[in-house]
Amino acid sequence: MARSCGATMASWQETAQKKRDYVRSQIPKEWLLEETPEDASNAYEYLNKVLPKDETEIVHKSLLQLQKDIKDKKLSSYEITKAFCHRAALAHQLINCCAEIFFDRALARAKELDEYYQATGELKGPLHGLPISLKDQINLEGLDSSIGYVSLAFKPKTKEDTSVIAEILYDAGAVFYVKTTVPMAMMAVDTYSNLYGQTVNAFNNKLSSGGSSGGESSLIGCRGALIGLSTDIGGSIRVPATFQGLYAIRGCTGRLPYCKVMNSYANQPIVPSVIGPSAQNLEDLEFFVKLIIDSKPWLKDPKCPPIEWRQVQLPERLTVGIMKNNGYITPHPPVQRGLQLIVDKLKAAGHEVIEWEHPIPVQTLKDNLGKIFVADGYGETKREVAKTGEPIIPQLLGFSDDLEEIGVTEHWEQGKTKYETQQAYDKAWLSKTGPSGRTMDCFISAAWETTSYPAGKYKPYHCSYTYPANYLDYTSVIMPVTSVSEEDNVAADYTALNADDEDNKHLWDYDLFKGMPVCAQIHCLRYEEEKAIKIAGVVSEALKQ
Amino acid sequence: MARSCGATMASWQETAQKKRDYVRSQIPKEWLLEETPEDASNAYEYLNKVLPKDETEIVHKSLLQLQKDIKDKKLSSYEITKAFCHRAALAHQLINCCAEIFFDRALARAKELDEYYQATGELKGPLHGLPISLKDQINLEGLDSSIGYVSLAFKPKTKEDTSVIAEILYDAGAVFYVKTTVPMAMMAVDTYSNLYGQTVNAFNNKLSSGGSSGGESSLIGCRGALIGLSTDIGGSIRVPATFQGLYAIRGCTGRLPYCKVMNSYANQPIVPSVIGPSAQNLEDLEFFVKLIIDSKPWLKDPKCPPIEWRQVQLPERLTVGIMKNNGYITPHPPVQRGLQLIVDKLKAAGHEVIEWEHPIPVQTLKDNLGKIFVADGYGETKREVAKTGEPIIPQLLGFSDDLEEIGVTEHWEQGKTKYETQQAYDKAWLSKTGPSGRTMDCFISAAWETTSYPAGKYKPYHCSYTYPANYLDYTSVIMPVTSVSEEDNVAADYTALNADDEDNKHLWDYDLFKGMPVCAQIHCLRYEEEKAIKIAGVVSEALKQ
Repeated sequence: MARSCGATMASWQETAQKKRDYVRSQIPKEWLLEETPEDASNAYEYLNKVLPKDETEIVHKSLLQLQKDIKDKKLSSYEITKAFCHRAALAHQLINCCAEIFFDRALARAKELDEYYQATGELKGPLHGLPISLKDQINLEGLDSSIGYVSLAFKPKTKEDTSVIAEILYDAGAVFYVKTTVPMAMMAVDTYSNLYGQTVNAFNNKLSSGGSSGGESSLIGCRGALIGLSTDIGGSIRVPATFQGLYAIRGCTGRLPYCKVMNSYANQPIVPSVIGPSAQNLEDLEFFVKLIIDSKPWLKDPKCPPIEWRQVQLPERLTVGIMKNNGYITPHPPVQRGLQLIVDKLKAAGHEVIEWEHPIPVQTLKDNLGKIFVADGYGETKREVAKTGEPIIPQLLGFSDDLEEIGVTEHWEQGKTKYETQQAYDKAWLSKTGPSGRTMDCFISAAWETTSYPAGKYKPYHCSYTYPANYLDYTSVIMPVTSVSEEDNVAADYTALNADDEDNKHLWDYDLFKGMPVCAQIHCLRYEEEKAIKIAGVVSEALKQ
Repeated sequence: MARSCGATMASWQETAQKKRDYVRSQIPKEWLLEETPEDASNAYEYLNKVLPKDETEIVHKSLLQLQKDIKDKKLSSYEITKAFCHRAALAHQLINCCAEIFFDRALARAKELDEYYQATGELKGPLHGLPISLKDQINLEGLDSSIGYVSLAFKPKTKEDTSVIAEILYDAGAVFYVKTTVPMAMMAVDTYSNLYGQTVNAFNNKLSSGGSSGGESSLIGCRGALIGLSTDIGGSIRVPATFQGLYAIRGCTGRLPYCKVMNSYANQPIVPSVIGPSAQNLEDLEFFVKLIIDSKPWLKDPKCPPIEWRQVQLPERLTVGIMKNNGYITPHPPVQRGLQLIVDKLKAAGHEVIEWEHPIPVQTLKDNLGKIFVADGYGETKREVAKTGEPIIPQLLGFSDDLEEIGVTEHWEQGKTKYETQQAYDKAWLSKTGPSGRTMDCFISAAWETTSYPAGKYKPYHCSYTYPANYLDYTSVIMPVTSVSEEDNVAADYTALNADDEDNKHLWDYDLFKGMPVCAQIHCLRYEEEKAIKIAGVVSEALKQ
């Protein structure tokens, strides 16, 4: 129903429906599904079955392979782009992952790039002709950046609004074709909004895709994208990457340019959100991060420190901390098994593995960050939803009706507490050595205590494995380890640490999570992106042995 | 008179007197002046006259020369330290520049270092035995960091409070011997506090030493120190360095570690204060900054980005922007002449010199920064002075009784405005090229429109030459160019741009400023400390031709 301020004003429901219809209308008719197929609860597997074999082959290649195929003229950008558009179109109809679809633009760009290469023998750049997906907060001319609000639908961005990082990728030859769904304000670890509804997991439509970059990761999980950009202020890159078994990096503040990327609470200065890729392959991830840094983003974004890409030489024998339990929530059996696998394989490969516990209770880290998130009493969100009358989504982190904005003095105290906590944590880390006497290179923990949870059922104890990297501004890389399999068909027979842990224990259900990817999280110190990626490579290699 | 809350409580006047007496009591009796000498209005010259010749010779050497003299056993640390202590003791009695005096400790440390070198043949580090002065906010065990408040007198810091940067210098072999005066809250560009009174200029006791690091710069100006640490949030390193004709650097946020340095509004996150040295010699300044960065401060201070010291190769022909007037306040004749000297000499040396104007009105930059400074309504200062009843000093930047604390939403908007301004300014800079087509390497302007002003007589239009580097977080190096001489014995015959400029014009008085140093300010982009120092070297060389 329309709100009272004018007969011509659409209700939020009408606007949202119109936007969803518009997105669907951008899918070519021949790619539309009449109805949701019954055998598509695992979208990834379903797409492998129904899509043309040559397309399935293309989307399973790595970015670096496709780069080579274009260079060698084995594949055209048009063929590659079309394969990803087709797969993304179907994926969207199964898991509801796209906020914007603009295949026409993408295919026209791909054709143009092909013609350029044909005519000149030169590539536009290292991403020449390669499709890249973007979370629905990266601004492109002529498209919305809704960040999950109905009020921002049908408010297309101008050329001047274009995100710096999108310009960098475009100049390197990238082809953009979709923007992916996010929850309201992107302040949730599930992906649900009144605008787009629920985005579900690529491998199980009963489960959450994670959030806030759930659209991005579930699309990549389905192989509807090679690599794409997400953002993270409390786990928003890492949670969906984990739920979809991807490689992903939460680099440190400003390492990659956030300039002109739409954001909630964009100017909250104590713990800023960061931007980074999620991908199917570690090599692709490294290539992509390096490419952006090599473009000298500090000349385009005043918030980027001028830290060039550094070649890292890892020691032959790493000293790896393992945190099997953060002292608050115990990981589910498959996640525990994944961590033990890492321990065993790293030891077998000759690395030094030591135990690591948070020197500060994780609840403190989590609570302190949570307070920063609600410093304005969710005023921005309240103002934004008031524009259309849409309700606040239940997943909003730490939301409560009676929150109030704080003054700068209290906010500065929050900054002080964070800084002192960083000092204390760094000190504990830097004095932690293995039997060899070497300082701990990284510590590895779960990225999440489970492999997902039922879509829409976020629990407030979640995020205790992701918040510390945000609060401390540590580098964090997510990597796949294994998947939930017969070995995990056991009861969660540990003693819960507290009521939240007990609750999480009850969430364990082998039949529900069967087949889901299991990931781990590698933490390095601040601005050690290159090192964290290299360590992920070492762990990955060890796991193959 | 004592305040009402207890007969035993001292009035702020009593506490301040007690503190000043205590500082004086730390001077050996034989170094005490009975009364202020009549011929000491220029403290620097007076000290040259009255101090032993060998000491005068020592204090006129550079840090690098003294480093070599110690290494070559031509001088001991004890001899050097004693020469600086003696000179600082007398300087303090003339210009009131010391907040803490601890010669006993310094001489004991020097002796210890001499013995160590004697015994082992090894130096403790690159600063072995060299005296370093510190602004009264750098924490050392057993000493106050008053930051200009009576309430903080007789509140000695503990070992755990020790500033990270002091530890780095100490570990490199430095000898600390004095801490230097600051104005209340260090939010003033003159150096006056109820605790210590007025600090005056090294060369003219009628004139201001500048602020907030007036104690530091006036002590170095008198050659009572070689090099020392100051801080800068609106000009506090640069203003006093300019008034005393020093080299100094305002590096970018976090380039040098501020961790555990006492500060006002320490956790205001939008435009943080930075720490950096002032010195008599550019080579000393470069050596000192490099030494601190080489110690990897990012492992000790979470706010430091890990940017190693970079060797910079300047082009043979620099493209230098010159800003002769910031469009708001016209520099006094000697400052204008200094800038013209630079233009002429750089051109003669084959460099490209182009005109540069702020792409954004300087009043906007200045007003925006001013609003950030008073975000908490000067609440912290009001609370601090309430502890003793001392009055607010009139020099406090932007203070007014009816200021009120703002909420986080407004504060975040201030951050947004700053960020957008940085983007716009960077863009204008990076698209500014000389006739050669090269992008502008730096721009040079006045650091202050005058060469000082009568002590205690701060005018609210000041700081328009210093605030931009803080607001934009640009690198800034101060360097001496010339001094006020007969050529400047002219009327200020320009047409004032506005009432403030008219007022400043009336301040010009050749007889008052005669002999004062004239400095210039070199601005480079963010985190270009190495480049800015190298350019200062090029300008310095050109000026010698």
